[in-house]
Amino acid sequence: MKIRDFKSIYSKYDVIFFDAYGVLKNYNGLIPGIEHTIRTLIQEDIDFYILTNDASRSPVELASSYKNLGIKEITEDKIISSGMLARSYLRYKVKKGTVTFLGTSESAHYIETAGLKTMPIRQLSLDDIDDISAIVLLDDEGFDWKRDINKILNLLRMKNIPVVVANTDFVYPVTEEEVSIAIGGISEMLEMIVGKRFIKFGKPDSQMFMFAYEHILETRSIGKEKILMVGDTLKTDILGGNKFGIDTALVLSGNTLPDQANFLIRSTGIIPNYICEDAVLT
Amino acid sequence: MKIRDFKSIYSKYDVIFFDAYGVLKNYNGLIPGIEHTIRTLIQEDIDFYILTNDASRSPVELASSYKNLGIKEITEDKIISSGMLARSYLRYKVKKGTVTFLGTSESAHYIETAGLKTMPIRQLSLDDIDDISAIVLLDDEGFDWKRDINKILNLLRMKNIPVVVANTDFVYPVTEEEVSIAIGGISEMLEMIVGKRFIKFGKPDSQMFMFAYEHILETRSIGKEKILMVGDTLKTDILGGNKFGIDTALVLSGNTLPDQANFLIRSTGIIPNYICEDAVLT
Amino acid sequence: MKIRDFKSIYSKYDVIFFDAYGVLKNYNGLIPGIEHTIRTLIQEDIDFYILTNDASRSPVELASSYKNLGIKEITEDKIISSGMLARSYLRYKVKKGTVTFLGTSESAHYIETAGLKTMPIRQLSLDDIDDISAIVLLDDEGFDWKRDINKILNLLRMKNIPVVVANTDFVYPVTEEEVSIAIGGISEMLEMIVGKRFIKFGKPDSQMFMFAYEHILETRSIGKEKILMVGDTLKTDILGGNKFGIDTALVLSGNTLPDQANFLIRSTGIIPNYICEDAVLT
Amino acid sequence: MKIRDFKSIYSKYDVIFFDAYGVLKNYNGLIPGIEHTIRTLIQEDIDFYILTNDASRSPVELASSYKNLGIKEITEDKIISSGMLARSYLRYKVKKGTVTFLGTSESAHYIETAGLKTMPIRQLSLDDIDDISAIVLLDDEGFDWKRDINKILNLLRMKNIPVVVANTDFVYPVTEEEVSIAIGGISEMLEMIVGKRFIKFGKPDSQMFMFAYEHILETRSIGKEKILMVGDTLKTDILGGNKFGIDTALVLSGNTLPDQANFLIRSTGIIPNYICEDAVLT
Repeated sequence: MKIRDFKSIYSKYDVIFFDAYGVLKNYNGLIPGIEHTIRTLIQEDIDFYILTNDASRSPVELASSYKNLGIKEITEDKIISSGMLARSYLRYKVKKGTVTFLGTSESAHYIETAGLKTMPIRQLSLDDIDDISAIVLLDDEGFDWKRDINKILNLLRMKNIPVVVANTDFVYPVTEEEVSIAIGGISEMLEMIVGKRFIKFGKPDSQMFMFAYEHILETRSIGKEKILMVGDTLKTDILGGNKFGIDTALVLSGNTLPDQANFLIRSTGIIPNYICEDAVLT
Repeated sequence: MKIRDFKSIYSKYDVIFFDAYGVLKNYNGLIPGIEHTIRTLIQEDIDFYILTNDASRSPVELASSYKNLGIKEITEDKIISSGMLARSYLRYKVKKGTVTFLGTSESAHYIETAGLKTMPIRQLSLDDIDDISAIVLLDDEGFDWKRDINKILNLLRMKNIPVVVANTDFVYPVTEEEVSIAIGGISEMLEMIVGKRFIKFGKPDSQMFMFAYEHILETRSIGKEKILMVGDTLKTDILGGNKFGIDTALVLSGNTLPDQANFLIRSTGIIPNYICEDAVLT
Repeated sequence: MKIRDFKSIYSKYDVIFFDAYGVLKNYNGLIPGIEHTIRTLIQEDIDFYILTNDASRSPVELASSYKNLGIKEITEDKIISSGMLARSYLRYKVKKGTVTFLGTSESAHYIETAGLKTMPIRQLSLDDIDDISAIVLLDDEGFDWKRDINKILNLLRMKNIPVVVANTDFVYPVTEEEVSIAIGGISEMLEMIVGKRFIKFGKPDSQMFMFAYEHILETRSIGKEKILMVGDTLKTDILGGNKFGIDTALVLSGNTLPDQANFLIRSTGIIPNYICEDAVLT
Repeated sequence: MKIRDFKSIYSKYDVIFFDAYGVLKNYNGLIPGIEHTIRTLIQEDIDFYILTNDASRSPVELASSYKNLGIKEITEDKIISSGMLARSYLRYKVKKGTVTFLGTSESAHYIETAGLKTMPIRQLSLDDIDDISAIVLLDDEGFDWKRDINKILNLLRMKNIPVVVANTDFVYPVTEEEVSIAIGGISEMLEMIVGKRFIKFGKPDSQMFMFAYEHILETRSIGKEKILMVGDTLKTDILGGNKFGIDTALVLSGNTLPDQANFLIRSTGIIPNYICEDAVLT
């Protein structure tokens, strides 16, 4: 496939969904020039949302981090995080009891706003688990891996309760060269060891896209053919967008390297509508 | 978990989703008494839908088969099949060209009503594939397994086009004792061999539930807490319903045997809200 | 890694193991010049064996096919097939009863020479399975895929007997462009559907290499460092050879394309000691 | 299957292979009476070996731990550990450079005795990796999980070197109620994340059994039909023994619970020759 300029594409759509990492920002801060994209969309009355597999922080905090980087236009209501889907699940399906979690105390926001009591796994005693009604895996920070991952494993062997995974990514970048294992990678190991099925939220699952689409439909009517998903990862952003039935653009500003894009498209069979250098409109 | 009478449960809900096989019917015809369930729901103004991983026939034909069995109340508009999701994908994402398929000519209905040309894989020549724009796996009948599954595999090696799977079940029952491999099982083998990602539709995926929910929302407003999913299979019906955020009832009239239900719930971690003998209201 | 001439490598070893397909022959017959390799090895008193994931024919028949192609030096005793490992298993672990199989009547040779009665699956009646003591998956030819694969599946649901897979390859080439699904691919689908563990023989499993090594040790003493495995497939020939502790050479005359070799080595982490164009000594 | 007394079985064999954990010992020390088994075998001139997926300590240390528990007859030469296979691989295939590892300094014994320099991953700087020639995963103790597992992951992304896994178990018991994730579980997560193939040693792989068998053949001739594998785990001990072609006995003194044994045999298709309460001869 040929590389197209994002300029020649975006104006065909009424709404654009962006992945965050590798599209709007990277380990270094904002992708240079991306603020022009956001401002152009606003000027041309094209709506946009950020769809992110990130449950480490609330939408308010995520919006505030964009503001600190220099884009005040990405407000809280523009952000759809996998944590919001996990919260929705907890609200409908768990309802009561105490929810224990792996993650920072900020990430527990998603449980608390579902109206549930929370307890970090490090505070849990395996002798006192009667009130524990669910486990939520939110973030790879905020706990001792050896002690607390093993504690989750033993809790799961003792009590049959749902396990909710609020971020399905296996890794995330920490510098230009290095990555860190995300909670989605840890959850995959736990699921394999206990042989149980976890409830997982995040791209490429359609629920993420549906959540955003429903949100739009609350205020206006729009067809799927007028929405574009822009992402840097075939297996999450592009696969998910394709399956949901919207157009997709792969950008090369994140973890898909320019010289591998066509090979990866061929070998995975995940075919975007467009490939662009980046999502910058200058 | 204790076994509850379906009578004590159903009236809490405004809408009930039923799986077809093992809940409404089995290899032998209707599950005895199930017509009373459908009629009671209609009398009490409780809405219902059939959510089925079946792309072998159109909703019209499926409704007609219920009519032949003696329930004329299950009309075409009550049936949501995974084939309808596949059609929706084809309409939004494929749009043009000829779609080749594995399945009977009846199953090709889902492609034709998406406005696309169809060609059974047996008629395809691998020397003339320029116009082929997608592959759809619909049904395990209607083709020569050895010749035509191999032909799909080679087509996929020659041309990078989307593969749509319209039924994710691995097997289906043919008699009390015997099962047959479904197209979902064949598709899993092909996906493993070519290493590509197929676009799969069917429970437990949320899209199936969302499709039904959207359909309801077109005419009325209803909260997820007023919907119940009734199914005989933990890994499709119950997992999917749970993840979508609705209540779930496992019935023992299909492929989950009464003496295994609690063991399976414990070992898979897929926990229904209720277990019932069957969905019969007498 | 650089491409080395096979000439500069072979003479460091006392024994060379060759994969058959893609190294000695291809869809077209012998790889041009490969007869010189065999003759040079014999002249220089370097021993050699063919290690093949092929259970469709006996070593006698395989040797005879090389003779017909023009190399009479590849005699029966030079061929180690995965079928021979399956036979060894049947001899030690099954011992009695009737063994049913998927494959041609030639492939049944491996069961018969284990001293067991055989019955092609097409002749089996599911009402009369008392004497059936094992299932062997030998070849993708010689049966009706739809009818007979389903019959195996139902037999496995009715009776808990070992399933032996005598060839773990997923596909094999039939022309320059096309492949066919091998019995190893079919077996993977069946294993996934029934959730049971089959007993599988073939590279990359060490047993294949050990069988050859033991055979050599019967007549002479030799260290592993004096053996080289030559193959065209990283995931079977090279992975297996590496794990067994012998040196490995990847040749590009089969299914690893020259422009992909280094990429595949990097992405799979399967690292041969050498890469060579082919195994031809001219 | 019926439960048989181990007394009625053992004397048919010339050599007995025992799994360690769940057969000879448990979280509490020796299995009561097991010392009689060892002494009876010695008196009756039946040879025995311990086959253990344990690379945390050397055979000398393992033997010394049995001595401390009260069985001085289990000497170093009776113990075959998966660490010994990893060492054999390192000796044949790595040969030079520095090997970095996850595990305690005791576990590094297996690398040092292969004649290689070792460096605990915590001491490694990712800026100085030129001399690193392999990674060995030995034990879940002796490092900081978050920091050092991530360091291994990044090392693997930077340099394509073999990863050797010296224990394939996913968990091990620490008390009657609780388990801990073993290095085999961590290795499975890493392998999935990087998409590379690791070199893994341990039951059920045949190499473990072959290593023991070869060891016996050095001093005497014995047929496989005269060897019995005794283990508490279907997926490692029994599957591995079956595939290697020797008789197998499942004991219920470890992680297979008496009321689940027959269900597990049916659902996994892994069929031992015998089931025994335990391996105690009184």
